[in-house]
Amino acid sequence: MTNFNARTIALVGLGLISGSLARALQASEWEGRLIAWGPREPSLRRGLELGVIDDYSLDLNDIVEQADVIVIGAPPMATAEMVERITSLLIGAERQPIITDLASIKGYVVDAVSADYPSFVPGHPIAGSEHSGVEHSDATLFKGREIILTPSANTDVAAVETVTAMWSLTGAYIRHMSVRAHDAMLAASSHMPHMVAYALTGALERDEADPMTHGGGALRDMTRIAGSDPLMWTDIAVTNREALLTAIDQFEAEMKSLRAMVDAQDADAMRAYFATCRAHRRAHDNILNPLLQSPTEETS
Amino acid sequence: MTNFNARTIALVGLGLISGSLARALQASEWEGRLIAWGPREPSLRRGLELGVIDDYSLDLNDIVEQADVIVIGAPPMATAEMVERITSLLIGAERQPIITDLASIKGYVVDAVSADYPSFVPGHPIAGSEHSGVEHSDATLFKGREIILTPSANTDVAAVETVTAMWSLTGAYIRHMSVRAHDAMLAASSHMPHMVAYALTGALERDEADPMTHGGGALRDMTRIAGSDPLMWTDIAVTNREALLTAIDQFEAEMKSLRAMVDAQDADAMRAYFATCRAHRRAHDNILNPLLQSPTEETS
Repeated sequence: MTNFNARTIALVGLGLISGSLARALQASEWEGRLIAWGPREPSLRRGLELGVIDDYSLDLNDIVEQADVIVIGAPPMATAEMVERITSLLIGAERQPIITDLASIKGYVVDAVSADYPSFVPGHPIAGSEHSGVEHSDATLFKGREIILTPSANTDVAAVETVTAMWSLTGAYIRHMSVRAHDAMLAASSHMPHMVAYALTGALERDEADPMTHGGGALRDMTRIAGSDPLMWTDIAVTNREALLTAIDQFEAEMKSLRAMVDAQDADAMRAYFATCRAHRRAHDNILNPLLQSPTEETS
Repeated sequence: MTNFNARTIALVGLGLISGSLARALQASEWEGRLIAWGPREPSLRRGLELGVIDDYSLDLNDIVEQADVIVIGAPPMATAEMVERITSLLIGAERQPIITDLASIKGYVVDAVSADYPSFVPGHPIAGSEHSGVEHSDATLFKGREIILTPSANTDVAAVETVTAMWSLTGAYIRHMSVRAHDAMLAASSHMPHMVAYALTGALERDEADPMTHGGGALRDMTRIAGSDPLMWTDIAVTNREALLTAIDQFEAEMKSLRAMVDAQDADAMRAYFATCRAHRRAHDNILNPLLQSPTEETS
């Protein structure tokens, strides 16, 4: 593992994820400086008050000039815009800092960058929360979680090593993937499940009997992520449309087949199906619960 | 609140839920005796070793004769069978203990009882786990959770009061509902969400890219209950077929409408829909997370 020798990290956009990265780096052996830029001063001021960052500026140039590593933290569309804006600033510059991002879609972001900027390392930490804002940031958010990087053949190897070293300080592990594989994988493992949680919550919201007032742990978990940021998830659904539709259709095929079993009261088929699902879930317990030693004991 | 003055409670079937009731009662001010019957001795012996029960017997008559309150804990079909079997034993008997059950379906159970037994109080605690077995039982499982009782006009009022007093000792709160309202409500608030979790897990299981290996907190929560007992959930799906199909169709209508928004990249419609869902979920945070003072800080 390369040492992480960046002295100044600039967070472009300060929210839950970038704030958690800042807190995790502060809790690590790294002793550099964290600065931030954002479109809204209150978040930046709040980050400074909370000690998440050391300084901020409302002048993007100012921040970019100071940074060894720039981390762009924003919904996919804004991320694409900021990568394009910052690489455009830096084309031809003598000093070209490393740029990485946190967006849940990589294709849309990568496609938006018109300039050739080998020090841009597209990234995506598989961690988050239904809450947003720097005040919810958490130094342990990435512990045991996966960080996916999607460098191309053109990406500077040293830049990839630096971004890898940065993330390693948070307790996460790093995997590489192609942009296309990432977006298809995430559609299935995250984006479609969010749509399912929204549709489930939407169905309960429309029900005049208000079934959620009788919910237990099962409903708590199945609807938690429906509390996620509407703007963020609209952006994700728009920018990963094709892969998301494919994943939704895969889910819908399963739902249709299960409905048919229920309709036919086909107990044998249901027992077999539920057992397969249970085995698949349990085989992934350690990945899904990285901070637990033993299987979860949560209530439903 | 009536005092709970039963001296001996018999658990017919010893598993996660009945074991948790036993532990919660032991942790309360109640000082009575807990005995159990079950079809498999190992569970009973395990319960005795763990201190969950004071004694057990493989002779159902023996247990029934000693009990002031009989709690039947089994999947819906077995529950119906046991209520019918025990009430048949007791018809005409001088001593008629109070009987209650824990099954997630009430119509199927109530319909199966041929005899008129006013001291049967159908019940359902809205609490559980994806784990099963007495070894996972937990004294705090019912704290802040809802217990639904579905007495009929014919049910003995004193029996309802005794069952209410018993559950109050666990930290739960009690609500009454008609059998029909219960089964429709639970189809929407629990049974359909379980089917959704199964279908989601089934879709990921079928995907050769194995997206679950890249899952975060969102997927952890959305698939947790797919680890639930396949026999139990087959029973529930079979015995609550009609209400479950209605709830699945309500969900599917939402999913179809959301898919159309994704397909059309209708950002305005998605933002509004996601915001409505978030508001609905957040309005129920306290019910879904009864042990927390503030909204959850879980990761996704």
